[in-house]
Amino acid sequence: MKIAILGTGIVGRTLANGFSQAGHDVLMGTRDVTETLARKEGDAMGNPPFPEWQREHPEIQLATFAEAASTGEVVINATSGTGSLDALAAAGSALENKVLVDVANPLDFSHGMPPTLSVANTDSLAEQIQQRFQGAKVVKALNTMNARLMINPSSLSEDHDVFLAGDDDAAKETVRHLLHELGWKDGNIVDVGGIQAARGLEMYLPLWLNLMGKLGTPDFNIKIVKATS
Amino acid sequence: MKIAILGTGIVGRTLANGFSQAGHDVLMGTRDVTETLARKEGDAMGNPPFPEWQREHPEIQLATFAEAASTGEVVINATSGTGSLDALAAAGSALENKVLVDVANPLDFSHGMPPTLSVANTDSLAEQIQQRFQGAKVVKALNTMNARLMINPSSLSEDHDVFLAGDDDAAKETVRHLLHELGWKDGNIVDVGGIQAARGLEMYLPLWLNLMGKLGTPDFNIKIVKATS
Repeated sequence: MKIAILGTGIVGRTLANGFSQAGHDVLMGTRDVTETLARKEGDAMGNPPFPEWQREHPEIQLATFAEAASTGEVVINATSGTGSLDALAAAGSALENKVLVDVANPLDFSHGMPPTLSVANTDSLAEQIQQRFQGAKVVKALNTMNARLMINPSSLSEDHDVFLAGDDDAAKETVRHLLHELGWKDGNIVDVGGIQAARGLEMYLPLWLNLMGKLGTPDFNIKIVKATS
Repeated sequence: MKIAILGTGIVGRTLANGFSQAGHDVLMGTRDVTETLARKEGDAMGNPPFPEWQREHPEIQLATFAEAASTGEVVINATSGTGSLDALAAAGSALENKVLVDVANPLDFSHGMPPTLSVANTDSLAEQIQQRFQGAKVVKALNTMNARLMINPSSLSEDHDVFLAGDDDAAKETVRHLLHELGWKDGNIVDVGGIQAARGLEMYLPLWLNLMGKLGTPDFNIKIVKATS
């Protein structure tokens, strides 16, 4: 399948790598290809600049947001949450009828740490995306964990869960299938409801951030424990 | 230990029962004792009116918010979240220097289902309580699960976690000890930080509500899964 990943940060790169290794044709999208390919500085987290990363992943091509979204059968929003609506607007009509997997979190760092959510409680980023791009089939997924876990769920000591929210059941099935290919077991892929349920998935982030701070690592996730059946 | 539980709903009753069975002297607090003892109607969830419940728990006495808080060495806020500040104001100076365990969630049902949070993102109910009653040692705990699980954690199929947030370490230790008595294992009691971390614990509620809807039961909880050590 042709998969477009919008965003060239660590989340986009990790997903690009994971889907490429699973046998998909991956095209990454960025606002300005020339600018992205000219970068010489890594990010604040110690990740190398994109050109350095791409030299080790020559099978993954870079294009504009619009070109990537046009080519992709599935489009993944891995841009930073506060810039997602603008990035998706650059993809524009190419999103029509596409499954659009939103893995972004609307984290606002402008007021210092810890970040707050730029949208929460009565709305969510995923709902804003669905509202703005009504022809797209938005599925919120994977935003509740570190990127490394997204493509390597077996790296933890036990099974743990990934959540899906979206209004289109067929789109959720497509995402479920893609998650299987990344190593997720069916029993650990939990459909939490329509796109409005994305509020809960995004509002989980403050707890996640506190846990990361206390555990001293982003390499953890949650698992739902049920009553003995 | 003398434990005061403010609120006579299902959460207060369940905790009263749990702490009473653990050997504590439990006093429940309500706004108007005469009114509460005159109730003849159960609640919308099918729980019986308080007098009917109390007949089966004669060891648990009822008093005003102020009387209960004065007597209790530890005070538990089990009132409904949107009424908690008013209820605690009725307890007033009796909260000074007390460990105040806040198990409430600021759920606002006035706009229909699903409820939103009446405070979120840049503040939390627990922070509002700590700000308003600065002499109290507020610990947010147990708000992330159904009441039955609070006092019977072993009823699920596997271990699962309860979270603590608060600025006073000694108060958190007191709560940790009380949780042990309710059956919680030390490794499943997770300190997520200062009182500001209560935001994350309260903002988890929308996800919890969606999960309850999808699972068809409130009898579940989450467990943190870490990397293999």
